[in-house]
Amino acid sequence: MTQATETGWLVVAGLGPGDEALVTQEVRDAIDAATDIVGYIPYVKRIAPRDGLVLHASDNRVEVDRATHALEMAAAGRRVVVVSSGDPGVFAMASAVFEALEAGPNDWLELDIRVLPGITAMLAAAAQIGAPLGHDFAAINLSDNLKPWSLIESRLRAAGEAGFAMAFYNPRSKSRPHQFARALEILRAACGEDTLISFARDVTKPTQETSTVALKDARPEMADMRTMVIVGNRDTRAIGRHVYTPRYAEGSAP
Amino acid sequence: MTQATETGWLVVAGLGPGDEALVTQEVRDAIDAATDIVGYIPYVKRIAPRDGLVLHASDNRVEVDRATHALEMAAAGRRVVVVSSGDPGVFAMASAVFEALEAGPNDWLELDIRVLPGITAMLAAAAQIGAPLGHDFAAINLSDNLKPWSLIESRLRAAGEAGFAMAFYNPRSKSRPHQFARALEILRAACGEDTLISFARDVTKPTQETSTVALKDARPEMADMRTMVIVGNRDTRAIGRHVYTPRYAEGSAP
Repeated sequence: MTQATETGWLVVAGLGPGDEALVTQEVRDAIDAATDIVGYIPYVKRIAPRDGLVLHASDNRVEVDRATHALEMAAAGRRVVVVSSGDPGVFAMASAVFEALEAGPNDWLELDIRVLPGITAMLAAAAQIGAPLGHDFAAINLSDNLKPWSLIESRLRAAGEAGFAMAFYNPRSKSRPHQFARALEILRAACGEDTLISFARDVTKPTQETSTVALKDARPEMADMRTMVIVGNRDTRAIGRHVYTPRYAEGSAP
Repeated sequence: MTQATETGWLVVAGLGPGDEALVTQEVRDAIDAATDIVGYIPYVKRIAPRDGLVLHASDNRVEVDRATHALEMAAAGRRVVVVSSGDPGVFAMASAVFEALEAGPNDWLELDIRVLPGITAMLAAAAQIGAPLGHDFAAINLSDNLKPWSLIESRLRAAGEAGFAMAFYNPRSKSRPHQFARALEILRAACGEDTLISFARDVTKPTQETSTVALKDARPEMADMRTMVIVGNRDTRAIGRHVYTPRYAEGSAP
């Protein structure tokens, strides 16, 4: 590391859900100016190699180690982009970088650290489906890796009873197949059996699939970890090929 | 209208919060292919005029009329882009287009209608602040134009008590200055007085200002209609210049 410390910076950048046409120019410019790209293997694979650019790909579930490595390099004068899918601030790398910053030496607080937003999966999925998040909504990560399942249940209940539409990240994995079935039970009770639920798998990728059913017809197998799930509110309806939630509130249609 | 009907289409496109570097290539391509741009005056002003492109700028609060006009033009064979700030699916034009579609003639259901996502204001604001939406969160429109204020109060209470971080669109206007004061009271009770609240005005514009205080120190004048307001959960903290919400749940820090 021979560069002067004052030139180092760290950017946490959102690459969007997969389609390169959804990457912002701001993110492209940061990648073009970087000396190092840090991220989970499939996201680093999206970055074109070039002379002077070092690609640091790492496995999943090492977010804080990866963030610490990125901060160390920025402190040593490197221009580092941590790549994240979607938006880095939504169940992605930005919080991990700040967790690592908080645990690190005090002089890291002087580093030039910026977060560049991206198109998060729920908004890409919503756009493909129509406008299911057109009214108040909640975004919930259904993985219990970092919080107790009981808390997830209570949030599903609270959001459904308050009439929020909902978007779920990480709805279902092989290691916890029963939980999404339980989530559907809670949603049927809190939102009503006729409320629409949409599944969008591999959003914006060539393999994209979407479907919408009433909650009473939803089955756990309709989702996996590559699926965004969006539940409407009681006013959400299908019109032709489109599913949307009106801007006005439930039961108060003009 | 001499063009063949089969060439018409309607795209609802998100221009992001203001900075041109946050517009996606997908949206730029749609604007380049359009014959007509429809939208609220300040958003249509962002589109460069060119030969063969008709700009239809309209005032605020005529969303469904504007959407109907756009659908009529698409049905007549025009290539129409309805421009929206932020993401069109988040408190913006996409739901208005589907409301107009639902109220229109049946043959409009065959139209080629697509929604193109954009960087919504809450995610641009969150990125400027740090990562305050790094855990489960709710997006709430605080305007009571299209829903009763009592419903907004109940959603603030439900989201706060369930531990969601929150982002507020349209927090305060001159016509209802007292409501945001009431919202702050509810939040202090539901989230605790020490929970952090951030204000981001004119996000990504040259006039941008951001600030963060504890709920006990928040005053209604800190927000106006050009401000995004983000409330953290009980684990949200400031670290140097950055405010972030950890990925792990409240009270369950690893």
